[in-house]
Amino acid sequence: MLYFDKATLQSLEKIKRLNIVNSITGIKPANLVGTISPDNKTNLAIFSSVIHLGSNPALLGMVVRPAGEVARHTYENIKATGRYTINHVHHRFIQQAHYTSAKFERDESEFAACGFTEIYLADWPAPYVAESTVRMGMQLVEEISIERNGTVLLIGEVAQLYLPPEALNEQGYLDLATAGSAGISGLNTYYTLQKTGSFSYARPGILPQPEEE
Amino acid sequence: MLYFDKATLQSLEKIKRLNIVNSITGIKPANLVGTISPDNKTNLAIFSSVIHLGSNPALLGMVVRPAGEVARHTYENIKATGRYTINHVHHRFIQQAHYTSAKFERDESEFAACGFTEIYLADWPAPYVAESTVRMGMQLVEEISIERNGTVLLIGEVAQLYLPPEALNEQGYLDLATAGSAGISGLNTYYTLQKTGSFSYARPGILPQPEEE
Repeated sequence: MLYFDKATLQSLEKIKRLNIVNSITGIKPANLVGTISPDNKTNLAIFSSVIHLGSNPALLGMVVRPAGEVARHTYENIKATGRYTINHVHHRFIQQAHYTSAKFERDESEFAACGFTEIYLADWPAPYVAESTVRMGMQLVEEISIERNGTVLLIGEVAQLYLPPEALNEQGYLDLATAGSAGISGLNTYYTLQKTGSFSYARPGILPQPEEE
Repeated sequence: MLYFDKATLQSLEKIKRLNIVNSITGIKPANLVGTISPDNKTNLAIFSSVIHLGSNPALLGMVVRPAGEVARHTYENIKATGRYTINHVHHRFIQQAHYTSAKFERDESEFAACGFTEIYLADWPAPYVAESTVRMGMQLVEEISIERNGTVLLIGEVAQLYLPPEALNEQGYLDLATAGSAGISGLNTYYTLQKTGSFSYARPGILPQPEEE
């Protein structure tokens, strides 16, 4: 095993440390966040930091760096409008999705520049990605500053949800392999997902058994 | 597409809503968190909420529900000792890892009950999982309450890091497929990962190209 203590990690060349620390949490979800500014400029940006916070109400978090050049437009639009969309990255369009991480000017929409179709559904003001098979309309409910490193946890409630019927079973499990959803490691490596096992609710005294679907 | 608005989602049967909302963020990393109490009882619990917060310093977050029966021992031990370990779940032991989610008594260690070997490395007080190929020794630096739903974001700094040499390349990319790291969807479905593409740093005007490794 390779071993790094805090000092060794800190002494690594900056890009190498960035790559390592961005990889060690394990697989991250690949999502495109769609927003629109008050003067109707749309923005689309890839995020690997979307996280489940609770189911009742349905709350999701997302870590952004407001001072970062790429996420700034997303952050400003969410703050200004209180609305955004989260759209799964399908493994068919990882290259275009990754392209949204380029520093486009505010006047140039990543939807058009990167080859995505913006659609507006059920009166939701923020643009959805037509090409995504899993999409959520999100309402900002709270912003929590993480002062230690200048990041912000944006908390949103799921107000609209679009799911592909073939990927959802009776119990409410979403099959991410059927949905084609991609994963990310680090800053620029993409993974497809293959389902290997679903287990029963675990109780002490008996190893959880594989579940039939 | 299936469509759920906020009211429809809220009106679903509780377990079904729980399964859906736990699935919609996309793939989540599968990690085992190892802790020890001041009276030397070890605990091991599976978490799908570990998240990257920053690389300088190397900060990771983790969402816990202190009032939840399963995560409570983990939370109490981290609060009492300030130390914990994060260990990737390898796809070879997903069944045993899932078993740690059972409500074991405080006196019964999930290490022994679920078939894992606890090891202590480089004087770190919290137990590591010997079977994991990626492991981190974490120092608690901050606790942020998310009052809206009673959860807590624990922020820790990476103090020790163990990586499998065959999975790390010169640039610092960790290959999660080579490391055997598993992903989770929802509460109980596990996925293996297959690398499909690594792209160059994205710049406006040119679609990012696949990178050689």
